[in-house]
Amino acid sequence: MSNKTNRGVVYQGPGKVEVQAIAYPELALGNRKCDHGVILQVITTNICGSDQHMVRGRTTAPEGLVLGHEITGLVIETGRDVEFIKVGDVVSVPFNIACGRCRNCKEGKTGICLNVNPARPGAAYGYVDMGGWVGGQAEYVMVPYADFNLLKFPDSEQAMEKIQDLTLLSDILPTGFHGCVTAGVGPGSTVYIAGAGPVGLAAAASAHLLGAACVIVGDMISDRLEQARSFGCETIDLREEGSMEDKLEAILGDREVDCFVDCVGFEAHACGCNSHVEAPATVLNSAMTITRAGGQIGIPGLYVTEDPGAVDENAKQGALSMRFGLGWAKSHSFHTGQCPVMKYHRALMQAILFDKLEIAKAVNVQMIGLDQAPEGYADFDGGAAKKFVIDPHNMVKA
Amino acid sequence: MSNKTNRGVVYQGPGKVEVQAIAYPELALGNRKCDHGVILQVITTNICGSDQHMVRGRTTAPEGLVLGHEITGLVIETGRDVEFIKVGDVVSVPFNIACGRCRNCKEGKTGICLNVNPARPGAAYGYVDMGGWVGGQAEYVMVPYADFNLLKFPDSEQAMEKIQDLTLLSDILPTGFHGCVTAGVGPGSTVYIAGAGPVGLAAAASAHLLGAACVIVGDMISDRLEQARSFGCETIDLREEGSMEDKLEAILGDREVDCFVDCVGFEAHACGCNSHVEAPATVLNSAMTITRAGGQIGIPGLYVTEDPGAVDENAKQGALSMRFGLGWAKSHSFHTGQCPVMKYHRALMQAILFDKLEIAKAVNVQMIGLDQAPEGYADFDGGAAKKFVIDPHNMVKA
Amino acid sequence: MSNKTNRGVVYQGPGKVEVQAIAYPELALGNRKCDHGVILQVITTNICGSDQHMVRGRTTAPEGLVLGHEITGLVIETGRDVEFIKVGDVVSVPFNIACGRCRNCKEGKTGICLNVNPARPGAAYGYVDMGGWVGGQAEYVMVPYADFNLLKFPDSEQAMEKIQDLTLLSDILPTGFHGCVTAGVGPGSTVYIAGAGPVGLAAAASAHLLGAACVIVGDMISDRLEQARSFGCETIDLREEGSMEDKLEAILGDREVDCFVDCVGFEAHACGCNSHVEAPATVLNSAMTITRAGGQIGIPGLYVTEDPGAVDENAKQGALSMRFGLGWAKSHSFHTGQCPVMKYHRALMQAILFDKLEIAKAVNVQMIGLDQAPEGYADFDGGAAKKFVIDPHNMVKA
Amino acid sequence: MSNKTNRGVVYQGPGKVEVQAIAYPELALGNRKCDHGVILQVITTNICGSDQHMVRGRTTAPEGLVLGHEITGLVIETGRDVEFIKVGDVVSVPFNIACGRCRNCKEGKTGICLNVNPARPGAAYGYVDMGGWVGGQAEYVMVPYADFNLLKFPDSEQAMEKIQDLTLLSDILPTGFHGCVTAGVGPGSTVYIAGAGPVGLAAAASAHLLGAACVIVGDMISDRLEQARSFGCETIDLREEGSMEDKLEAILGDREVDCFVDCVGFEAHACGCNSHVEAPATVLNSAMTITRAGGQIGIPGLYVTEDPGAVDENAKQGALSMRFGLGWAKSHSFHTGQCPVMKYHRALMQAILFDKLEIAKAVNVQMIGLDQAPEGYADFDGGAAKKFVIDPHNMVKA
Repeated sequence: MSNKTNRGVVYQGPGKVEVQAIAYPELALGNRKCDHGVILQVITTNICGSDQHMVRGRTTAPEGLVLGHEITGLVIETGRDVEFIKVGDVVSVPFNIACGRCRNCKEGKTGICLNVNPARPGAAYGYVDMGGWVGGQAEYVMVPYADFNLLKFPDSEQAMEKIQDLTLLSDILPTGFHGCVTAGVGPGSTVYIAGAGPVGLAAAASAHLLGAACVIVGDMISDRLEQARSFGCETIDLREEGSMEDKLEAILGDREVDCFVDCVGFEAHACGCNSHVEAPATVLNSAMTITRAGGQIGIPGLYVTEDPGAVDENAKQGALSMRFGLGWAKSHSFHTGQCPVMKYHRALMQAILFDKLEIAKAVNVQMIGLDQAPEGYADFDGGAAKKFVIDPHNMVKA
Repeated sequence: MSNKTNRGVVYQGPGKVEVQAIAYPELALGNRKCDHGVILQVITTNICGSDQHMVRGRTTAPEGLVLGHEITGLVIETGRDVEFIKVGDVVSVPFNIACGRCRNCKEGKTGICLNVNPARPGAAYGYVDMGGWVGGQAEYVMVPYADFNLLKFPDSEQAMEKIQDLTLLSDILPTGFHGCVTAGVGPGSTVYIAGAGPVGLAAAASAHLLGAACVIVGDMISDRLEQARSFGCETIDLREEGSMEDKLEAILGDREVDCFVDCVGFEAHACGCNSHVEAPATVLNSAMTITRAGGQIGIPGLYVTEDPGAVDENAKQGALSMRFGLGWAKSHSFHTGQCPVMKYHRALMQAILFDKLEIAKAVNVQMIGLDQAPEGYADFDGGAAKKFVIDPHNMVKA
Repeated sequence: MSNKTNRGVVYQGPGKVEVQAIAYPELALGNRKCDHGVILQVITTNICGSDQHMVRGRTTAPEGLVLGHEITGLVIETGRDVEFIKVGDVVSVPFNIACGRCRNCKEGKTGICLNVNPARPGAAYGYVDMGGWVGGQAEYVMVPYADFNLLKFPDSEQAMEKIQDLTLLSDILPTGFHGCVTAGVGPGSTVYIAGAGPVGLAAAASAHLLGAACVIVGDMISDRLEQARSFGCETIDLREEGSMEDKLEAILGDREVDCFVDCVGFEAHACGCNSHVEAPATVLNSAMTITRAGGQIGIPGLYVTEDPGAVDENAKQGALSMRFGLGWAKSHSFHTGQCPVMKYHRALMQAILFDKLEIAKAVNVQMIGLDQAPEGYADFDGGAAKKFVIDPHNMVKA
Repeated sequence: MSNKTNRGVVYQGPGKVEVQAIAYPELALGNRKCDHGVILQVITTNICGSDQHMVRGRTTAPEGLVLGHEITGLVIETGRDVEFIKVGDVVSVPFNIACGRCRNCKEGKTGICLNVNPARPGAAYGYVDMGGWVGGQAEYVMVPYADFNLLKFPDSEQAMEKIQDLTLLSDILPTGFHGCVTAGVGPGSTVYIAGAGPVGLAAAASAHLLGAACVIVGDMISDRLEQARSFGCETIDLREEGSMEDKLEAILGDREVDCFVDCVGFEAHACGCNSHVEAPATVLNSAMTITRAGGQIGIPGLYVTEDPGAVDENAKQGALSMRFGLGWAKSHSFHTGQCPVMKYHRALMQAILFDKLEIAKAVNVQMIGLDQAPEGYADFDGGAAKKFVIDPHNMVKA
């Protein structure tokens, strides 16, 4: 289509990602025309924990897939049907692709748009089974339905100043926030966040923004717990002896919390000494144990319909052994699914622009170049308490 | 305390209930004084499906337990601290006992009151593990915290005219309604109700009251399905061949519903030819299959923390094999627990009094005397498409 | 642009409307291209009470304005950027025009879209100060942002069978429904509807659909009250002696209602003997008097920012003399504004298609040809208890 | 009843309050027994802006009325029907008295309880027309329905450490918070708070707790604006030239706010040079001008049903000249009434106890002795940027 070039992060089989030359984006997805789309020069694009599911070989992701669904960029070309987004705008891209015209989009449920994935509701960039849209860990990427999907920053210069915070609007900040909202977090709440990876830390920061009285984060990695403490969270080290209830009581004077946010998902490990053993229902069963009667459980952590790499037959079919009666006896409600980013990103942008939320600090953003992406994947998989943000054009000031 | 006599329905071990002389109620529960309580002459008291769990021997209910938590009565004595309820009032008793003074009650969560059951949040009359309050399938019963708990009918005479409808306010009507509300049922919804027992039929009638476009009820018993059709529901006979999706499409032109209400609970049986086999997660897994992405699942059907009579070890500990990832992929939410009756009973009373809801007809109320209670239990357990209502004093006109 | 012809209802100054030749629609509004738009062959288009404000000369509507914002049609041409709506679809047009891409549209507030009216948020077809979009009381009309705005009926043939009901989805049915929703109407509510014009009757039918226990409609025109009684409403004739509270008590046994819906707006007249005198705050003050403490007041009836034809200086500036402290003492909330049709039209369509709502009967639809429109306007202004629906191509079966 | 003594702040006619010997409280209100009540030794009791309405002679308050509805105390005696509150508990008293047993209380609307004021829904301590309950600016006071009304602090010692913050839970903190909640304030919101008195400052602090991006406070008193700036608010001095919209634009880059909270009420004064002129609808009309389309307006500021001291006949009857059409065109909603303190006080207590909210600092608490109360009234009426808190027993550490 042009002599323009592009480079991106490509999945090459279990445990292997490479930076390669890829096609320059066009305003189309195969035969599907996208005159409603724009081409972005990628300013920042983040490595996400859910990318790791693919890279670890837990999914059916095909080799050659261009990764990356956390994208912030500069608009350099607009399709003919784009009316309000303009060349030169600096924009945040919600990781979930949405048409803005179907029943679900009209209801604000952009995570399960009906028109962007022939296989099932919901789509994303650079992800297996999510519609085939090309990923954005690259120099350039195409964003469809741009007028609907994109969040334009009001002032490009100001945006570039805060880009390490704003880059987190495409996924983990709204995802953590959604976990808190669906868990019922509000002023005065006591909150337990399962998992101190980037989503868990974003959930913890969101809980503070929502006015929570006490935010407790649990994990098995010391650095991540340290990171949580750096912005006012209490922590529980799951490797230590003792019941969760006792540990909560020591912190809160109470053996249960009001709200529980599962930022771990199906790749959970058993607590305590057996932490190398996968136990996919562990976090959910723990949620029912330590959440007060009448509490809500927000579940932004991913649970999959099929898990070919699972330890047993049940888990391969996505079946978990849940102590559901425990939750029933306490009138719990359970809230699942991808975060509909658009429901929250504008408000969270405002919180960032008005200096109410230092999210880059909270999740410990680490800027890297495109060529360092494979190394970033490896470090992140090793449990580094960092959020790796790729800067493909070296546009971000230190 | 007095020479007054009382008779009630008493659990006598698996499969056995008897009508016996029992103690006349006093304004106390053991050592706990209940000057906030009243004594009711029971007008009507209904046999409930959840009583069957005990009678079938699936629980640790002790022999000698007086059954009955669905109670409507005439106030004949008031404790000294009762201020607004008066002798002569005709009242509906919510099956969940609540103090009206704890955090949960103040939040409207009267199903998990913190002050009425030392063992855990929530209490009920005549039920195992629910606080030890004496059941109301009897001539007389004590109701604590009467000013808070009781719903007074505005006109006693009018109430007696409609008592076969109003008797359902103590449990199954609000319970079915709560299932619909938490499933998101509203004007225009398509709704699937799992189970055509009394709660299922009450849920179906509630869905109509809430303005649902199409209410589909599934069961394995022909008479119950016939009953559902009698007031405008569509039905699915689960014994028939074919997928649920195909059956829905034939009715709706759509393979999924907006809202799903599980009125079955943990004693579910597998669909189709294996219907004699218990399969406690069957209904929940079915819910995730046929509920549209973004839909909600209301679960008034009981799931237990422990199930000593279950078929396998997992189920004995209340652990179900749930395909949770399927729900996650569709952004489902799951809403569990006992209905907080007080949230709904006044509004539903108004619907009955103004002739908007013929709930006695919908669930096929069958009036019986106290001495017929054991027979009622047996018939109900056999799958009779009836709701048995006991009239201990022969006060109800035919 | 073409040799195609068109005819429409044109405002010709106070008290005067005429059917005239008008331009055949194009996919543009002046210089603004609308490749996202479609051309409809109008199947039905209704005369609305708010059109009367213009025709009576109460506004600054210019002569030559083509009227009509209640439109149902057949798609006969689609712009190049329309992706999901197809030629041959039968569709309902929300009266409020919305882009589907701005902050307000994304929040579901399509009545105050930011991109369709340079003067202020919100636009409509054929209405003064609402963006200059051409009205649809015509043979053909253009609808912009068609993929977003239009509600496609699932089956065209079925739609034509029920077209007299479905035609009300473009405005008055959702508008009346929105009034009820914002007034808090639900199962068991007692509701007062001020005004028995088409919107009032649609609100009353909506209240029934929402499960209200008792719906009371007040007006000064006998035929309209008779119409309300025809579908199960209670009525109050405002010309009769006696206080509202006494009249309510006779109906309800209660001197207040739970919910109040103002379907009259600024052209209200004083109650009782002075009913020829305009009293723009009458309905609002009445609302605060007869709504119970804690109740909500839904206000779909139009209040204007300026009213050049008003009786006094204050009213000319849209200032009303409101007894606001009365509402404050009762913790009332007040909910104003145009109905965001898209929030409700799909659900209400389902209610119609599944035979839960006979709205054409409730508002007494009267089909007329395009040439009878001026007569329809006159009859309606005279208080006829009818909803006039224009059938420009004689497509509707009797 | 006893030889115990009591002293309190007594209204003695316009402009005059005195500290006098008053009756020691009993567990009754006249003939109404209050065995559900407790006697408190008052720890702190605050002077409130709404007390000033009485003291200025704007109401029909009778001479001899004991003032004070903001009370925190130590339980020294409990009625026989009190079950959960114990002698020795340190408790916060919601200013609105509620029975916990009526329809409104059960719905959480404790500001309009139906059983505590024969004249109308809602009651308070020491306030004209609010049920005749004795005020708490005294050494001792009686609190009825104690189990329901009182918020017990979990640790008495800790409570005494934070008592200057916790004392604000009885009224102004929840009141300001309620204003924000009903105005729709949440993470990322831009908020305008009308009035920088104690309620306005509490609303501003609440807006921050709720995550607002930018909180702007407007007033005419320099010291109060200075106080607002001390905890991160932007301010607008209403005495300065220029339109509100221009001033907002200078702060926000936007001419409207998302949310508006009216903390002024009916005693508003015109902006600008005429600030000595009362203009009771000024704030409400300003709200409609500067709140964005789709925004909400929270109105904790008091509007009265009658205002004998008003400047004109309309205002005497509580009638305001509101530009209601302006709000209608922007789809505003208006939320009025007394704050139902119990809905919020527990959560706000948690925020204080976990160091999330320094409310005493924000409103500039000034501790005084009981005998200094008259002076406190005078200073506060003069516009002091302070919240006066009376410490009748000298129990509070400096």
